[in-house]
Amino acid sequence: MLGLMQDWPLLIHRILDHASRYHGTSEIVSRTVEGPIHRYTYVECARRSRALADVAQKKLGLKAGDIIATMAWNGYRHMEIWYGLMGLGAVVHTLNPRLFADQLEYIVNHAEDQYLFLDLTFVEQMEALQEKIPTVKGFIILTDRANMPATKLRNALCYEELIAEGDAGFVWPKLDEQSACGICYTSGTTGNPKGVVYSQRSHVLHAMALCAADAMAISSRDTVMPVVPMFHANAWSLIFSGPMAGSKLVLPGPKMDGASIYELLDSERVTFTAGVPTVWLMLLQHLEKHPELKLPYLERALIGGSACPEAMMVAFEKKYDTRVVHAWGMTEMSPIGSLANRSGATANFGHEQWWPLQLKQGRPYFGVEMEIKDDHGKVLPNDGKTFGHLVVRGPAVARAYYKGEGGQILDKDGYFDTGDVATLDQWGFMQITDRAKDVIKSGGEWISSIDLENAAMGHPAVAEAAVIGVPHPKWDERPLLIVVKKPEMAVQKEEILDFLKDKVVKWWLPDDVVFIEEIPHTATGKISKLALRQRFADYRLPTVQAAE
Amino acid sequence: MLGLMQDWPLLIHRILDHASRYHGTSEIVSRTVEGPIHRYTYVECARRSRALADVAQKKLGLKAGDIIATMAWNGYRHMEIWYGLMGLGAVVHTLNPRLFADQLEYIVNHAEDQYLFLDLTFVEQMEALQEKIPTVKGFIILTDRANMPATKLRNALCYEELIAEGDAGFVWPKLDEQSACGICYTSGTTGNPKGVVYSQRSHVLHAMALCAADAMAISSRDTVMPVVPMFHANAWSLIFSGPMAGSKLVLPGPKMDGASIYELLDSERVTFTAGVPTVWLMLLQHLEKHPELKLPYLERALIGGSACPEAMMVAFEKKYDTRVVHAWGMTEMSPIGSLANRSGATANFGHEQWWPLQLKQGRPYFGVEMEIKDDHGKVLPNDGKTFGHLVVRGPAVARAYYKGEGGQILDKDGYFDTGDVATLDQWGFMQITDRAKDVIKSGGEWISSIDLENAAMGHPAVAEAAVIGVPHPKWDERPLLIVVKKPEMAVQKEEILDFLKDKVVKWWLPDDVVFIEEIPHTATGKISKLALRQRFADYRLPTVQAAE
Repeated sequence: MLGLMQDWPLLIHRILDHASRYHGTSEIVSRTVEGPIHRYTYVECARRSRALADVAQKKLGLKAGDIIATMAWNGYRHMEIWYGLMGLGAVVHTLNPRLFADQLEYIVNHAEDQYLFLDLTFVEQMEALQEKIPTVKGFIILTDRANMPATKLRNALCYEELIAEGDAGFVWPKLDEQSACGICYTSGTTGNPKGVVYSQRSHVLHAMALCAADAMAISSRDTVMPVVPMFHANAWSLIFSGPMAGSKLVLPGPKMDGASIYELLDSERVTFTAGVPTVWLMLLQHLEKHPELKLPYLERALIGGSACPEAMMVAFEKKYDTRVVHAWGMTEMSPIGSLANRSGATANFGHEQWWPLQLKQGRPYFGVEMEIKDDHGKVLPNDGKTFGHLVVRGPAVARAYYKGEGGQILDKDGYFDTGDVATLDQWGFMQITDRAKDVIKSGGEWISSIDLENAAMGHPAVAEAAVIGVPHPKWDERPLLIVVKKPEMAVQKEEILDFLKDKVVKWWLPDDVVFIEEIPHTATGKISKLALRQRFADYRLPTVQAAE
Repeated sequence: MLGLMQDWPLLIHRILDHASRYHGTSEIVSRTVEGPIHRYTYVECARRSRALADVAQKKLGLKAGDIIATMAWNGYRHMEIWYGLMGLGAVVHTLNPRLFADQLEYIVNHAEDQYLFLDLTFVEQMEALQEKIPTVKGFIILTDRANMPATKLRNALCYEELIAEGDAGFVWPKLDEQSACGICYTSGTTGNPKGVVYSQRSHVLHAMALCAADAMAISSRDTVMPVVPMFHANAWSLIFSGPMAGSKLVLPGPKMDGASIYELLDSERVTFTAGVPTVWLMLLQHLEKHPELKLPYLERALIGGSACPEAMMVAFEKKYDTRVVHAWGMTEMSPIGSLANRSGATANFGHEQWWPLQLKQGRPYFGVEMEIKDDHGKVLPNDGKTFGHLVVRGPAVARAYYKGEGGQILDKDGYFDTGDVATLDQWGFMQITDRAKDVIKSGGEWISSIDLENAAMGHPAVAEAAVIGVPHPKWDERPLLIVVKKPEMAVQKEEILDFLKDKVVKWWLPDDVVFIEEIPHTATGKISKLALRQRFADYRLPTVQAAE
């Protein structure tokens, strides 16, 4: 027996329909690549998005299922492409301009992008790449005629000229809500990037779930600034959930330095913002240099992408009275997976009891299921101590990568393995303790490399510390602590091990400590465990020599 | 090209799964029919709901698609039936005990309910009815053995004994999200009641939409008390949206007098409540009698079902510092259609500019589309003045009634006609001006009977006023004003017409005024236009006589 409710598929265009109908005068404010601040309303955004859909169909020949790419900052034209082309049923593939040229070449060819929409910033980068991406029939430059550059890009079109030919009376087609609407490639540390393919349904449900008062709690009274780029995991849904809530939107364009971000936060009276710690570090440094500056409008800052340092949270909360919402997610999760909001059970916790929870990555909202499992797929207890593979389920979680890359990615219960190792506590808060590939497996038990590193970092002579697992005939793996000493500081192996003794359980103590000049880092500033494992591939622990 | 996101159907049981997993210690507090306050947690609610599903399958033989009825107050056992049996895939049909016996007989037989779950309160009522509802195989009384009455009900079972046999390890079946999960009959003023059939999807989407910060904005820090009964349009979704948000729930059981409601608001520190004006009138009267009583915890009161009187809003807001959220909806809309929350555009309105909007029925949230149309289906302007047939679309709006009663109910654009006449303003706020069947159609233009009545009520000698349309050869219909004078007051027809002259446009002026002793009312206290139309069926306007 089926229900007798209306057939109302969950389609992206409905979000903009709602915003333009009920919050039509609310603004979208963009810092443009050309320089000036641009501002218009949801009504105008909807009108131009429909015109774009119309001209994309008429002139570019785009139809439902066709894939196009964007390489653009957060701005109103980029937003029109999302709504206009997803509304048409096309699939918008966001390119991260920070990728290496060979990665960009790989993913454009893998996705077989038909057109590429790009900001002025990226014209040269694309000129250099265009011969290697033959599926791209033309390049649409997001500017007007006056700012069009002389370019060697093939079939280069001016966005404003193109959209001027579109009919704003375009009527959105009725699509299957399971239709693809977006692709974002994960920057996997091993192997080629893999494409996550979002559906109209998954993005709408993700945005609905995040609009909840118990999740991001954004409303039409909010002014929302996604500093996190649209090419970085869908700007954490804010280009969808903002208009769904009817919020005013502020899009910072290419300028993400502290002064530029501060300027928008202040002049546009932003109440809710979101971004990675690096951006907030720049903002806080700018504020420190100008003690007269405050953040009187900013109520909440969503911080994720990597763990928010405690000092950053303290600065926001104590100094600027801005609540930090620590968040976690991944491209495969659309991307938000958890948010560190107080729950009913933790609402009355005093600061001392609450603070350790706020430092965790948060709790799932309705629409995300989460478990930790051991190597055999057994669900582990939620005691805040036991750690295991973090696995997730939900309507906005990937079930496969584009073109089947990576094969079957769900476990027997339908969970996606995040590749993270985490704990879950009795209040539902999750804490990432390690990447699964970095955890040290000693005698069937796990040792967190991150916990050991943090403990070692507490020693006054240690500038930086890294821990990797190295082979051991009896225990499979044992931890090796790699240390960079602070300049002019002398410290011995035994001293450091002694220091760790009351900080970690005995069997976690590293089997050896080595001192090196510099620890290798990845492009995003994280310790490169891969490089360390390669460097110490032939290393033999003294305990191994002893055992032989 | 389809998306590659997980298959995660929108099923009711996921709401309780989420609540019990992430808000497991949050309470559900119920005033029982037996007397005492009962309290337990979401963990226990989920455990018992699964046990009920198990035993309903094993012992009652219930399976997906089977229809059962409930006649019960808001309480934890009623909630277990919703989650347990909807989770199993059964269809829960809520009976309104205030219906007449012949209406109850009609709807139970029409729905072919297989079992009937009832509170102790309703045993006698059902004993009187049971012979006339032969599809019901047995009656489950929502109490324990100690409180089981001697009853003539056939196959009477004790709920607590039944559930004790269930296995709390029951695993929810995977259902199609389009499966029916509930039926509620509309108490149509004409013809037989008609069944609205909800789906798992529609209830989940409705609850998700209402959890938004821009809609009901309930969170896990809230304590939510639905005073509106579960048998009255799904308790306005709060039995779903409350657990989805992780709120503490307070269920008031059979006692809805002012003192009892106040007691729970205060002792349980309720922050959000919802109900019809009648209930709040009783509460406010109780508070007025006890000036020492305040509402320090109550932040928001959702008021709907019928228009909230201005004096009630003023009392809540000025005297008790409780924000009133004026709401509108109908059984066919699951039921919430609009909420009078401030939007971005109205956020900074001063009291004088905001207040008239708060008195309106509110604006649609994401998931409800709304238009006003003329008799020919043409969409009318949103100027706050033009009124037309209010039509709605959305994933939680009915597309048909059970068993096809009423035939095709959607217009060519897929809209459901609410039967109300309303205006929409530039900010998206909707105001009901009349029922479509009460509006007076004069020369192709519409006259609002309610506006005329309100204007007439302003005259000091008028105790009550009603306006109906009566036939007119030239204008089709013209308004007849029917007045009950205040005791000892003398007033003439001409005086009243004169009084109205500067209050309504000239062509709205009634063609006649008649004075009667008493205006007939319906069971719910509204003016019975039907009875008036019958009484004045043979009435001829003086203007008709003049025209002849």
